[in-house]
Amino acid sequence: MAEQSGSRNMVRVACLQMEPHVGEKDANLDVSLGLIEQAAANGAKLLVLPELCNSGYVFRSRGEAFSLAEPIPDGPTVRRWEAAASSHDVYIAAGIAERDGDSLYNAAVLIGPSGYIGTFRKVHLWNEETLYFEPGNLGFPVFHTPIGRIGMAICYDGWFPETYRLNALAGADIVCVPTNWVPIPGQAEGREAMANILVMAAAHSNSLFIAAADRVGTERDQPFEGQSLIVSYTGWPVAGPASRTRQEIIYADVNLQDARRGRNWNDFNQVLRDRRTDVYDEMLGADVPRGWY
Amino acid sequence: MAEQSGSRNMVRVACLQMEPHVGEKDANLDVSLGLIEQAAANGAKLLVLPELCNSGYVFRSRGEAFSLAEPIPDGPTVRRWEAAASSHDVYIAAGIAERDGDSLYNAAVLIGPSGYIGTFRKVHLWNEETLYFEPGNLGFPVFHTPIGRIGMAICYDGWFPETYRLNALAGADIVCVPTNWVPIPGQAEGREAMANILVMAAAHSNSLFIAAADRVGTERDQPFEGQSLIVSYTGWPVAGPASRTRQEIIYADVNLQDARRGRNWNDFNQVLRDRRTDVYDEMLGADVPRGWY
Repeated sequence: MAEQSGSRNMVRVACLQMEPHVGEKDANLDVSLGLIEQAAANGAKLLVLPELCNSGYVFRSRGEAFSLAEPIPDGPTVRRWEAAASSHDVYIAAGIAERDGDSLYNAAVLIGPSGYIGTFRKVHLWNEETLYFEPGNLGFPVFHTPIGRIGMAICYDGWFPETYRLNALAGADIVCVPTNWVPIPGQAEGREAMANILVMAAAHSNSLFIAAADRVGTERDQPFEGQSLIVSYTGWPVAGPASRTRQEIIYADVNLQDARRGRNWNDFNQVLRDRRTDVYDEMLGADVPRGWY
Repeated sequence: MAEQSGSRNMVRVACLQMEPHVGEKDANLDVSLGLIEQAAANGAKLLVLPELCNSGYVFRSRGEAFSLAEPIPDGPTVRRWEAAASSHDVYIAAGIAERDGDSLYNAAVLIGPSGYIGTFRKVHLWNEETLYFEPGNLGFPVFHTPIGRIGMAICYDGWFPETYRLNALAGADIVCVPTNWVPIPGQAEGREAMANILVMAAAHSNSLFIAAADRVGTERDQPFEGQSLIVSYTGWPVAGPASRTRQEIIYADVNLQDARRGRNWNDFNQVLRDRRTDVYDEMLGADVPRGWY
């Protein structure tokens, strides 16, 4: 019984590192479905795909972004991902350009074997995304599923420690991160990627799993960084980093319950309960003028 | 004139990695003064010493901690550090066991050429420190000095992204971190230390400098990790990590003004101003039951 219970808690997580091409939505969707089929055949249960993996990333205009965006969950991309999740009995977290009336969002959907579960909209927009998308207005939702509590974040959201902290405080066991990481100055061969370092630090200091699925390739002169990785609640990678250039799938078998179990570090310290909200609230309540920083 | 102004902005920062011995306060103080003299002779202007570097760390009882603690700034340790700062014309940030009436604090003092500047009291207590010290009640003060705005944090404080965020929002250009890092599970030779990863992530995502001075040696069966480092506002180390076992000094020449200048990452993003306080406030205001995490 203990063994059975234990095995039920193990989940194979996969990051599907792919190369979307901007504007080629049908082809991108087909590639994603092929990777989903392959990951499912290899036993993966929770599959993470990159940011904007159906549309591509480097838009020339808001009009181009608009023409590639779809309603959620009634657009064709989510419907086909739903069919795949159902037939393979898997969960999919994937980045998609969302159209809601006349507003666009850099979004991620969570889909399960029974269909659409929920949406996250990127909270922190990067660079010219600001010209095309509205800032996310759904906070950081955490979805309760049979395999665990699942949060989402997209790319630049990961530069804000608040992103992972709020996910942890809302109960997330794992945060799925569809991303399109771009090069960071100072990066060098043989050096841990800064994007990876941010993920490791966040996983460690919040005691939660993070699965970041990046894209590869160069789009309209913008290179992307690959190096997808799955990080344990300890902060150490359990899969990846993947290559900087190749489409590939990385896998890790994890017990998502360990995230919450692992927060007691000794007789005195539980890393989330040790937060000094008295200090934070008082300091954040202070009216710091914007020019200060 | 531009060159002169530029050179005035350069500061040589030093982390003085040392090995205190618990209870041997006079000897520890002498070692710290020797290292201060050496660092000053090598041109350092801002010198960081480890946590509890005058008392040692592994106390057997509150009584032992009490007997080693001193008032600030009127105790003998601060008075001797003041004399050294004055005669060498340097700034010193150093960890010290503080006694304030009957209360003890795991503290750090900032001292300049003109004497005592201010105190930080460790906000997040680690393990059995909880038995000896009161939790810090001074928030995260940032001290304005001729060489820049200087914040402080001690060891486990660095496990809380709030520590560096609050320092950045309070205007810190550099956070000095006296620390006594202990081994972390999963650490391996040739692998970046998790403590170092946390520092790099915090420096990058807040665009501020961090100088972490650790201790070495084993005290009453408790080993410490060394690997002191100085990290640029970019997140990349500019000195260290130092060795895991040797007393040594690491140096970096930095322009502290770059921290604030470097926050504009493109035409749209300034990493501190991009914070979505609307989202954070709403989520942190939600009354999450403690049992949730």
